[in-house]
Amino acid sequence: MTAYRILPIPGYTPTIGRLVGMLTYARHTTLAAVNGLTPAQLDHLHDDRSNSIGALLAHIAAVERGYQIVTFEEREPSPSETAAWSPALKLGDEGRQKIRGNDLALYTEELIRTRQATLAALAQHDDAWLEAPLTIAPNLNAHWAWFHVAEDEINHRGQIRWLRARLP
Amino acid sequence: MTAYRILPIPGYTPTIGRLVGMLTYARHTTLAAVNGLTPAQLDHLHDDRSNSIGALLAHIAAVERGYQIVTFEEREPSPSETAAWSPALKLGDEGRQKIRGNDLALYTEELIRTRQATLAALAQHDDAWLEAPLTIAPNLNAHWAWFHVAEDEINHRGQIRWLRARLP
Repeated sequence: MTAYRILPIPGYTPTIGRLVGMLTYARHTTLAAVNGLTPAQLDHLHDDRSNSIGALLAHIAAVERGYQIVTFEEREPSPSETAAWSPALKLGDEGRQKIRGNDLALYTEELIRTRQATLAALAQHDDAWLEAPLTIAPNLNAHWAWFHVAEDEINHRGQIRWLRARLP
Repeated sequence: MTAYRILPIPGYTPTIGRLVGMLTYARHTTLAAVNGLTPAQLDHLHDDRSNSIGALLAHIAAVERGYQIVTFEEREPSPSETAAWSPALKLGDEGRQKIRGNDLALYTEELIRTRQATLAALAQHDDAWLEAPLTIAPNLNAHWAWFHVAEDEINHRGQIRWLRARLP
């Protein structure tokens, strides 16, 4: 990315395009923050309450998948989806135990695959949809939900940068 | 905040209003993350390379003031401004030495005062301004600049939450 501009993007309605610019920029910085990490570095636990960088990457993808279901499919995740994503969504002990031993490519491929699905679905929706209350959570609209996906990712990217600077 | 919706906001042009919603939500979460911290907690250094939570709060306000100058005043910060903000902007050793001994109120009042100035200026601009390249940095537009202010804040809020959970 050479220019840093939030603008409408061809293929999306204008406000969705601006949001896609934010999501894309956030993802770019996340991938830059983990570039070149080894499986041992991705598994490293700074202390006994820390999440590994790998678990934080899995969390970022799981949050995005969850919001795909809530906003595009307009339903709650199923029990089997909730169970499958639980270690990544909840992090903590479960994440520390179950999310380990993976190459960086496993995490980045999941992030890329998930994002491709998000962008394909956003291209099928419009700004009126983005602004309307979510059918299953009318306290939210889709614009907040997708801003929140970026915001949660950026929050954890801040932690990833801090943790990476202290890897052994 | 009871409803989580990004929407146009009266008093701002539509896209600026949506951006204000993001800035406001991010600030709300930052203030929640530091609520009740004592001066000793705000000064605590997790390790010899960490920034204190107080220094991170000062950084968040300084970044916002810097982007006010770049986007609203269309100029680079002056040498005296750069010198005054340097500990907060650069963090590191200078921040560790110079940003200490303050009550939470000092940090939050600076954040509130800075944000009031941002919102007053955004109310005087429109969506065409938001999208146009910055005169002093045409590689950026004001929308990216103000998204970046929120993004940098959220990044450090992620670190603040991590640090707060480990205060002695």
